[in-house]
Amino acid sequence: MDIEKVNSMDFGEFVDVFGNVIERCPLIAAAVWSQRPFSDLEDLKKHFFAFIDALPQSDPTSIPGARAGQPLYWDPETGQEGILRCHPDLAGSELRRGTLTAESQREQSAAGLTSLGADERLRLAELNAQYRARFGFPFVLAARFSDRAAVSRELARRLLCPSAQELRTALGEVKKIGSLRLADLLRADPAKL
Amino acid sequence: MDIEKVNSMDFGEFVDVFGNVIERCPLIAAAVWSQRPFSDLEDLKKHFFAFIDALPQSDPTSIPGARAGQPLYWDPETGQEGILRCHPDLAGSELRRGTLTAESQREQSAAGLTSLGADERLRLAELNAQYRARFGFPFVLAARFSDRAAVSRELARRLLCPSAQELRTALGEVKKIGSLRLADLLRADPAKL
Repeated sequence: MDIEKVNSMDFGEFVDVFGNVIERCPLIAAAVWSQRPFSDLEDLKKHFFAFIDALPQSDPTSIPGARAGQPLYWDPETGQEGILRCHPDLAGSELRRGTLTAESQREQSAAGLTSLGADERLRLAELNAQYRARFGFPFVLAARFSDRAAVSRELARRLLCPSAQELRTALGEVKKIGSLRLADLLRADPAKL
Repeated sequence: MDIEKVNSMDFGEFVDVFGNVIERCPLIAAAVWSQRPFSDLEDLKKHFFAFIDALPQSDPTSIPGARAGQPLYWDPETGQEGILRCHPDLAGSELRRGTLTAESQREQSAAGLTSLGADERLRLAELNAQYRARFGFPFVLAARFSDRAAVSRELARRLLCPSAQELRTALGEVKKIGSLRLADLLRADPAKL
């Protein structure tokens, strides 16, 4: 698919095709659509990432509707943490139940996470649970850059990082995943590149 | 399901159960989760709506990362329009292809939109297309409060409204739909109410 094709899409098509660039957040694709035309893959990527970067409301009083004395609807980083919370566990219950998105299924499979032994699955489930309890969002990793041994190693390592740093790391992984998904989509018709 | 049950959910369960309260926007449920505990259905609803109301960025220069001379990533209302763009057409191609969400399928079916004659379908498709071209988002209506005759009448009427008013009306419908979906979910176990 070339960038002219992308720019010619109405929002229904665009959300269909790009709705899962950020896992389970078609709202982001729906907002990015209004920024077309895009000059190339990099430009398209930039708009997806800008939406993510803009989500935190570091000054909740600037939110329309937020008034002194009313509850603040946003923790400083709730929006970005929300994006993380839309991600499934690696080798978790969604993989077992078969409810992963197609993209996620492919990525977890490429990292060998669909063929773990019972011991490895259990070890990963425990680490995932510790991570969620500690940070309030699931462990997110661009699994396509990884393999099964590296996944638990990385999970054990990141479990020990400070929260603010870990939020940044996790959002960086969301962007790596999004980049790869975008590149796949734009390369879907190699004759056009 | 009672509110204690809701408050006891981890974010994975919460996003599974409430992810489609706002059509195809699990990000909103994922962000609302961090505001628990909720006192009742009304309180839960308030948090979903507050996220929607806070989405517009009426002063884009307040967005972190937005600098003088850089492109502004948000039109004043892109975020809220994004929510609308995640909605399917009524009696449109998604209904035909069978790719509606379960909730949307049920609602369109309740309004009789799954059993339109070819003429009515065509008429509605034309009105939907005109509406999308005019406003940049699809026609959204809480179909459960409606029937097939009322849907096209309302569509024809709203097609003539000023844009700013129509954006408000459409978001009001999103909230009606969300209210009904939340009420369904909370009532799912009547023995507990």
